[in-house]
Amino acid sequence: MLKVNEHFLQLPGSYLFSEIARRVGAYRASKPEADIISLGIGDVTRPLVPSVIRALHEAVEEQAGEKTFRGYGPEQGYGFLREAIAGHYARRRQVALQPDEIFVSDGAKSDTGNIGDIFAPDAVVAVCDPVYPVYVDTSAMTGRAGTYGKDGRWSRLIYLPCSRDNGFCPQLPGPHDPVPDLIYLCFPNNPTGAAIKADALRDWVDYALRHGSVILYDAAYEAYITEDIPHSIFEIEGARSCAIEFGSFSKLAGFTGLRLAFTVMPHDLRVGGVSLNKLWNRRQTTKFNGASYLAQKAGEAVYTEPGQREIAEVIAYYQQNARQIRQGLSDLGLEASGGVNAPYIWLRTPDNTSSWDFFDTLLQQAQVVGTPGSGFGPGGEGYFRLTAFGSHARTAEAMDRIRRLFVG
Amino acid sequence: MLKVNEHFLQLPGSYLFSEIARRVGAYRASKPEADIISLGIGDVTRPLVPSVIRALHEAVEEQAGEKTFRGYGPEQGYGFLREAIAGHYARRRQVALQPDEIFVSDGAKSDTGNIGDIFAPDAVVAVCDPVYPVYVDTSAMTGRAGTYGKDGRWSRLIYLPCSRDNGFCPQLPGPHDPVPDLIYLCFPNNPTGAAIKADALRDWVDYALRHGSVILYDAAYEAYITEDIPHSIFEIEGARSCAIEFGSFSKLAGFTGLRLAFTVMPHDLRVGGVSLNKLWNRRQTTKFNGASYLAQKAGEAVYTEPGQREIAEVIAYYQQNARQIRQGLSDLGLEASGGVNAPYIWLRTPDNTSSWDFFDTLLQQAQVVGTPGSGFGPGGEGYFRLTAFGSHARTAEAMDRIRRLFVG
Repeated sequence: MLKVNEHFLQLPGSYLFSEIARRVGAYRASKPEADIISLGIGDVTRPLVPSVIRALHEAVEEQAGEKTFRGYGPEQGYGFLREAIAGHYARRRQVALQPDEIFVSDGAKSDTGNIGDIFAPDAVVAVCDPVYPVYVDTSAMTGRAGTYGKDGRWSRLIYLPCSRDNGFCPQLPGPHDPVPDLIYLCFPNNPTGAAIKADALRDWVDYALRHGSVILYDAAYEAYITEDIPHSIFEIEGARSCAIEFGSFSKLAGFTGLRLAFTVMPHDLRVGGVSLNKLWNRRQTTKFNGASYLAQKAGEAVYTEPGQREIAEVIAYYQQNARQIRQGLSDLGLEASGGVNAPYIWLRTPDNTSSWDFFDTLLQQAQVVGTPGSGFGPGGEGYFRLTAFGSHARTAEAMDRIRRLFVG
Repeated sequence: MLKVNEHFLQLPGSYLFSEIARRVGAYRASKPEADIISLGIGDVTRPLVPSVIRALHEAVEEQAGEKTFRGYGPEQGYGFLREAIAGHYARRRQVALQPDEIFVSDGAKSDTGNIGDIFAPDAVVAVCDPVYPVYVDTSAMTGRAGTYGKDGRWSRLIYLPCSRDNGFCPQLPGPHDPVPDLIYLCFPNNPTGAAIKADALRDWVDYALRHGSVILYDAAYEAYITEDIPHSIFEIEGARSCAIEFGSFSKLAGFTGLRLAFTVMPHDLRVGGVSLNKLWNRRQTTKFNGASYLAQKAGEAVYTEPGQREIAEVIAYYQQNARQIRQGLSDLGLEASGGVNAPYIWLRTPDNTSSWDFFDTLLQQAQVVGTPGSGFGPGGEGYFRLTAFGSHARTAEAMDRIRRLFVG
């Protein structure tokens, strides 16, 4: 008799952003005239840059011509894009990658979720706490997370606390702690906005090498780094034998609606003698039919000289918001981190207010929407995430309102 | 200690189309002047139609504007597209669907593979033989296929033979046969080009309802139907309680490079009391971030009046090739089926030649590339697939060469 995947039934019903939408909707219904500013969801708002727009129009024209039409592309991505990405790693980060170590896809959310396919179902997973929910939920869907407890913790996950006590950088498991097989690390971090320094990242690489773990490194926000720290885990020696890296065009070039990302699978990465590059290649060629040709041509344009200059301006635009939010909060005597190497600012709620209570206060008294930290895991309780992806004007207005709320 | 997903290691190494590419490459190296015509891979060749091109340019312009830029869309697809698809089902097939029963995605290959996520890992899977390899390989990746035998058969799969003896239409399991939990059906069929009549499809729906099975119905080629037979399994009474349907824009409108598809999950479909629509919604919102906005606007254009007229012309173009291929083969006294409701022609190799021997003969003596039937499973041995997606001129030239090969 057919049964559903029972692990799905363990997943808690309400998804963070649905609950936010529900509360905002209810408030809007009660105050239709309210001018709500969202610094909540992590989506970009600036239009695509001219080089990308030009590449898209050209690619559309190619699709209109009998001689230039392109159907199925390689499931792993077109050579022109894989080479452009490898070239960027070499030029900017002095990281040598073969093009066939890069797998182009439709999104880092897909890749960070799908990556579980190539590992044994009983692999032990470690996640930071707080954490981007996709790592946890996709682990839960395969049973790797175990059962969901009333305390909001999964029985089989190893949680790596990230709090102000450790500067939001997870500490290595101790010698008597269980050893994780798969370690999700995301730096610069969503949601805390914290970055990781080379020394700390090296410790993790060494740990993984020593214990045969694989690090799943989500570098979706690397373009927001302003300090002299690693953008890629492959800047660390040995990482090629223990790490997979996820890159994304979403926050790099505003491709959230266009859909383009990539996963780096070094040839040196083997588990039980098996090449993960080969397994991922088999997974992608079997369950995926390649990213859109248009998106890939757009991605290629990002790596041209004008493309790089144009996206740098957009990133600088968001970075200015980030600085403004963080400074504004600090000026109010609030405890805020992030925002320096990331588009996220992580605010400690004042007076130990719960994350959701603070959400309601901000919504109702300042008409500003953010994201309750507890939505990112138990370790996020008492925190609140603000994003730098708004316009300058609206971000400034939001900060004015928050100032008035606290100063009166 | 971390282990890989050992089911991956069961997968036979060489993938059908890679082996074809290898043999074609070797031949080309030995005869650089050869003019090879491919009627092999199932990819379209005609450019996108004007309505789609216009919609794409407009959507690109929206992405360039501050006020019209779109970032993340709903993971399930934009309402405008879900409503257009539902409208088409209602108008053309008298099938009533709610827009939230339609989940837009980047491809039917992804969906037919990923669908396994929502079922128990020990679900028993039935496939037609021959079959589109994705159903088998993705079942193998979760262990549902069991082990791969030397005879090219998987130990846990139920094979439903499709041969000339049953008109390439699978027969129901008998009363003493094992009952499959999941039944992959693809009609019009890839690779055989056979279609299914309403009566036969009704038998399958009744079987599934009686046994609590779920039919995974791949309707990717429905636009090629010329006879009065069902385009959608939901034209059959009761199917809403036992079937999932996969639709695709790839062969409908030439979106193989653009990437757009959808899955229909009726609300009536429950397994053990659980709504599969809800489970799939959870799967897609967690592991997928929506199809490209550009592709979705292009998909909307397909359902406009000019869009429908334009794609009908392209489909008619390919259908003419299909008729020509099938007629040409029949005129030579060869046994060929398909091509009437599908872009595929299924040829019985003459004199019991093996599929791969016939491939080599055709390549070396006529410089025509097709697909060996054995690549689609043991039941495909002794058959050969030709596709109708070439140009008129090249298809006619290929048929001339085949004629010369057989008639001399």
